[in-house]
Amino acid sequence: MSSVSPLAPKHVPDMPEIPGVRLATGAAGIKYQGRTDVLLALFDKSTSVAGVLTRSKCPSAPVEWCRAKLKGGKARALVVNSGNANAFTGKTGRTAVAFTAKLASQATGCKPAEVFLASTGVIGEPLRASAFEGVLDRLAQGAAPGRFLDAAKAIMTTDTFPKMATAQARLGDATVTINGIAKGAGMIAPDMATMLSFVFTDAPIAAGALQALLSSSVTDTFNAVTIDGDTSTSDTLLVFATGAAPNAPKISKASDPRLKEFRKAFESVLANLAEQVARDGEGARKLVEIVVEGATSKKSARRIAMSIANSPLVKTAIAGEDANWGRVVMAVGKAGEPADRDRLSIWFGDTRVAHRGARDPGYDEAAVSDYMKAPEITLRVALGLGKGRDRVLTCDLTKEYVAINGDYRS
Amino acid sequence: MSSVSPLAPKHVPDMPEIPGVRLATGAAGIKYQGRTDVLLALFDKSTSVAGVLTRSKCPSAPVEWCRAKLKGGKARALVVNSGNANAFTGKTGRTAVAFTAKLASQATGCKPAEVFLASTGVIGEPLRASAFEGVLDRLAQGAAPGRFLDAAKAIMTTDTFPKMATAQARLGDATVTINGIAKGAGMIAPDMATMLSFVFTDAPIAAGALQALLSSSVTDTFNAVTIDGDTSTSDTLLVFATGAAPNAPKISKASDPRLKEFRKAFESVLANLAEQVARDGEGARKLVEIVVEGATSKKSARRIAMSIANSPLVKTAIAGEDANWGRVVMAVGKAGEPADRDRLSIWFGDTRVAHRGARDPGYDEAAVSDYMKAPEITLRVALGLGKGRDRVLTCDLTKEYVAINGDYRS
Repeated sequence: MSSVSPLAPKHVPDMPEIPGVRLATGAAGIKYQGRTDVLLALFDKSTSVAGVLTRSKCPSAPVEWCRAKLKGGKARALVVNSGNANAFTGKTGRTAVAFTAKLASQATGCKPAEVFLASTGVIGEPLRASAFEGVLDRLAQGAAPGRFLDAAKAIMTTDTFPKMATAQARLGDATVTINGIAKGAGMIAPDMATMLSFVFTDAPIAAGALQALLSSSVTDTFNAVTIDGDTSTSDTLLVFATGAAPNAPKISKASDPRLKEFRKAFESVLANLAEQVARDGEGARKLVEIVVEGATSKKSARRIAMSIANSPLVKTAIAGEDANWGRVVMAVGKAGEPADRDRLSIWFGDTRVAHRGARDPGYDEAAVSDYMKAPEITLRVALGLGKGRDRVLTCDLTKEYVAINGDYRS
Repeated sequence: MSSVSPLAPKHVPDMPEIPGVRLATGAAGIKYQGRTDVLLALFDKSTSVAGVLTRSKCPSAPVEWCRAKLKGGKARALVVNSGNANAFTGKTGRTAVAFTAKLASQATGCKPAEVFLASTGVIGEPLRASAFEGVLDRLAQGAAPGRFLDAAKAIMTTDTFPKMATAQARLGDATVTINGIAKGAGMIAPDMATMLSFVFTDAPIAAGALQALLSSSVTDTFNAVTIDGDTSTSDTLLVFATGAAPNAPKISKASDPRLKEFRKAFESVLANLAEQVARDGEGARKLVEIVVEGATSKKSARRIAMSIANSPLVKTAIAGEDANWGRVVMAVGKAGEPADRDRLSIWFGDTRVAHRGARDPGYDEAAVSDYMKAPEITLRVALGLGKGRDRVLTCDLTKEYVAINGDYRS
């Protein structure tokens, strides 16, 4: 485990309990003996669930399981393990998933179809689900409210700090709470970019409404983060709504106007977690915000922003604290989106370094060099073509990224 | 300048003269004083020219110049400089290009429209074309047949070795020669992936036929190489056919059956140069061949191969000599192309490590680990869907890549 990222948040949030959610963590010896590697979450009856999952054509067995079970819209348990992704494990992977769900259903007294699963770790190694035997029983017995910090720690792999966020919102006359945890670090790019993240709320929101809310909220949060342009086989973001908040009105449609404040709080939790994922990119020393404006559409702005955010040459320049805006020009040019070189302007922080197709003659190179030393860099590109605007987060590409990924498995 | 890549070819080819081509190199002090940074090539009258250029939306001024002048189909001179790409230089860039062409035309007694230009180096710095004044005159006077090694050296930037290839072919009753030089190193990905490459032949091939030949030959050579997925603003591949080979028949159509042997030799020169570019990827320690077969089409196979070849996680694993085939699964899955996880098989060298959606139970991990220590690695993926097949070349992603690109400009 590396030392904590210098970009880690200075404060760990105080995570309140969520009525209807109980958590427990333990060690099943999935990859290493004695290391906490399992999270069990238990939900009260009538908890609804929504999720977004990787668009990989080679999804993990748990991703396929969740995709199928999300149709039911109900959840009673969540089992997450680190150490093994149970991805590309063929029939044994499917068997392991079904066996784990069965163990969890027995331990908690629910149906297997109400058990949700997520795994992270090495791809291609069969997961010995028998390791959960006994463990899930003990966890179910010991599960208790709160403990979100333990849960966030239990799902870490190469993460250097646990990722949590919390918010409250008025819903009708009630106050509801939203807690989220996430893990990230590497193999992170949209479609969707989540790695693993689990969000819990006591708001009573029906599964369909929760799904609509989630699907729209993910666009500018988790899907606007990229570390290395690589999309995991296991990306999973699940939201559980227990409905246990006293006096909260039941919400059945995402368009319900009473959701306004909740939606904002929910998005803030997702945005906060997504930013923490960028702050903990493998080997990251700088958090980089890419803003693209003046594109022909938001979608086009997103593609250009991602082309910049995923360019190894842009990312290594930022690692080297070099305001190499020529590489930004390159990344705009290769994006395959409408762009007119002679209308293009570029800012590093507040300094306009390029204006309408050429170097800005007035810019102060020393000021920009100074700016590049900061831990958080904003890079803005104006295309001058339309009103499309977007923003993505990424980090720099350092020698540490290469070191971490050059000997992760062995 | 780094030490020579361990993947450099063991032998430097003996480059014969090409009738109708004279070369000269010199120092114009574009970026550094006293360093050879200009190549001038002179061509006999009736030399035809063809080219492929970057598809970047932010092309350099010389790329725009070449694109316009290729329509004429005739070339008398080529001026190449390193040290400054004359890209994103606005109106001053266009002025610099016109001025350079004028100087070359005066020095050589041709029209400016018969002068071709290419520049490589930093993006965004105005090119002082006045630096060529006097220099091009001297070079024109001293230009002589041969000297391809000097030419290949003059266009290097972060390249660690000069790149040259040569071949001969029968054309009718004559023997014609094809010589090529290239520079590469970084910012290399298709559309098109050339960086700078110049090919010279004494075959009498009309511009239209030459263009058709080039456009089809580039697909599986230069466009099948990627170093970092970044596409330069300056990628330029030009072919000059002097027609000075004695007794060679004039060819006016690419479909002429007499071109059969020439086409093969021409492609071999392009393939050889493209491979040298991969061998000299910045920081490269391993040459990596990615073969994808069983895809729904060749185009689909290419996209999947490129997704693997550009994956930072695959490339860092190879740098770490780790046969991490799980990351290959990931890269297949994220390519957005048809793939069925449960039909997917993967080989490292001759060892099948994954078969039909799961780890191959019989594979010898020690043998694969040994294989990963080799300087040349072949990674094969069989999708089991159709007959589409393709092959691309890349290299590993090392800490040296990050180091080279973290302080290239400053």
